[in-house]
Amino acid sequence: MKKFMNTAETMVAESIEGFVRAHQEFVVFGAGRKCIRRRELVPGKVAIISGGGAGHEPMHIGFIGRGMLDAACVGYIFTSPTPSQIVSAIEEADTGAGCLLVVKNYDGDVMNFEMASEMASDRHKIEMVLACDDIETTRGGDGRGRRGVAGTLIIEKLLGAGAEQGRSLSELKAFGDSLSSRIRSMGVALTGVAVPDTQRTTFVLEPNEVEMGVGIHGEPGHSRERFSDADTIVRYLSETILNDTSRSTDKTLLLVNGLGGTPPAELYLAYNSALRIMSEYGLRVERSLVGTYATSLDMQGLSITLAFLTDEELSLWDSPVATAALRWRC
Amino acid sequence: MKKFMNTAETMVAESIEGFVRAHQEFVVFGAGRKCIRRRELVPGKVAIISGGGAGHEPMHIGFIGRGMLDAACVGYIFTSPTPSQIVSAIEEADTGAGCLLVVKNYDGDVMNFEMASEMASDRHKIEMVLACDDIETTRGGDGRGRRGVAGTLIIEKLLGAGAEQGRSLSELKAFGDSLSSRIRSMGVALTGVAVPDTQRTTFVLEPNEVEMGVGIHGEPGHSRERFSDADTIVRYLSETILNDTSRSTDKTLLLVNGLGGTPPAELYLAYNSALRIMSEYGLRVERSLVGTYATSLDMQGLSITLAFLTDEELSLWDSPVATAALRWRC
Repeated sequence: MKKFMNTAETMVAESIEGFVRAHQEFVVFGAGRKCIRRRELVPGKVAIISGGGAGHEPMHIGFIGRGMLDAACVGYIFTSPTPSQIVSAIEEADTGAGCLLVVKNYDGDVMNFEMASEMASDRHKIEMVLACDDIETTRGGDGRGRRGVAGTLIIEKLLGAGAEQGRSLSELKAFGDSLSSRIRSMGVALTGVAVPDTQRTTFVLEPNEVEMGVGIHGEPGHSRERFSDADTIVRYLSETILNDTSRSTDKTLLLVNGLGGTPPAELYLAYNSALRIMSEYGLRVERSLVGTYATSLDMQGLSITLAFLTDEELSLWDSPVATAALRWRC
Repeated sequence: MKKFMNTAETMVAESIEGFVRAHQEFVVFGAGRKCIRRRELVPGKVAIISGGGAGHEPMHIGFIGRGMLDAACVGYIFTSPTPSQIVSAIEEADTGAGCLLVVKNYDGDVMNFEMASEMASDRHKIEMVLACDDIETTRGGDGRGRRGVAGTLIIEKLLGAGAEQGRSLSELKAFGDSLSSRIRSMGVALTGVAVPDTQRTTFVLEPNEVEMGVGIHGEPGHSRERFSDADTIVRYLSETILNDTSRSTDKTLLLVNGLGGTPPAELYLAYNSALRIMSEYGLRVERSLVGTYATSLDMQGLSITLAFLTDEELSLWDSPVATAALRWRC
């Protein structure tokens, strides 16, 4: 599988350098390039920090800026950032009101973010919110085993908006936990994905197959289905999500996210299909987002995310955001 | 090649319906769905209108809104919109100051936009600007044979900004012609692309090959090269562009555009490489844009565009734009 890269070793660093140079109005490198942070920090605002492996761009670096993240750390491809990177982000972004870490629920990330929290806890107030929206990995219904995927960005946007309003660290922690329980996603792949240093794909699909329930690290899903039309595929994802979800309200935000190799035209078509299905189920899609936000390198595929939100949360979604990947009302 | 679609016949209509439903704050369908237009037209402003075949999304529909296009028509995949569609866009978007049509330089598009101009000329003042940035198709150096590719969006942005300032139709026509002569692009493909109704690819690449000089309709390029690292590929594109270009200034806008199947991380890496090469050649990259803007269905590949701009044009680039695909300062 061909990719635009020089060496597997330098790929992440070069890509991130390109990102920072392209978006200097929003971001700067932190000391020693351990993290990327918002160019203008806001004194007294709770810092919202995230991070994870590379290969998911624009998540999370594309969400740094006004109304969303204050800093993010990037590890190697599909690999957690180190505790030292995360501590550095905490030190750079905390302007006195403490830090909220938004962590996708993977063992490596959770371990490193927890370790960093402990290392920095004598000098900083720190809380953590786990993003665990991927229903594929549901274990026992309590959400503990769920991976964090594209729905993570909804948590980051709403927490970022809440932080700009001046909410306290404990308020934001409670808000994030509540949100996290009301966001569910599922992904489908049309192709596997090759990790640059091994050039191996974690699963290989035939021309007539799709993989249902994929994550964003090339993990295979729970079932291989016959490739069929978009309506059938989107219905499968949507109904699986709805079956897993307790509907706290009928008001939703619908996110159709491309996994890296699927172009906008196909995402809009899938969105159109998803809208029809959600309406059949009596859901009101009050807000939408369609685009390539949480990728799995160059995988062809998409995920659908449904967030059940209150009116107040919907207006937080609308509030100004100025980042590389999400930008409105500013 | 697998794509998210239902039938080849309905693919474009369903995708565009999804787009319009996702971006209702910016766009509405025109009468009979013949065009898509800006939700709030500005009385007395020159209308900027574009269009072309489907398969290039977000171009052009993603550029409809404040500060850019007033309307766009979409044909079938890789096929010009009909004169009747274009006339409809002219009728809907002209609020009295006339219409400027931005047309990518392909025979079918030029013919249909010219025919529509004639059909509507008794009721509307109409001018046309040709986008012809693709150096691959240079014939004789006068630009007549050049195709329009990703650089088209730079013309659309700057004309849109000029129109918002209240410039007249004749001023904008002269501005567009001048701009068009200072924008040059070149593309490379890592994969061919299958057109949905035939499922045929127009060229097939081996794992160790890339196609240099591709257009955005699956046209093969001028040479098949050995697949190599990003620096080598980007240098090939950049130097070919620079050899074809008379440098009117050292101030440039650099656009690294994904062709549909290449993820953000690779585009940022290629941008980083392009920045380094432009600097070697003494160019100042004053503005940048990196992303998936002018696609060729799900082709893996990218194009590099260099626009030589004056200070005044650079500030027009900065002026507010509120569209689905480009959004800043508003």
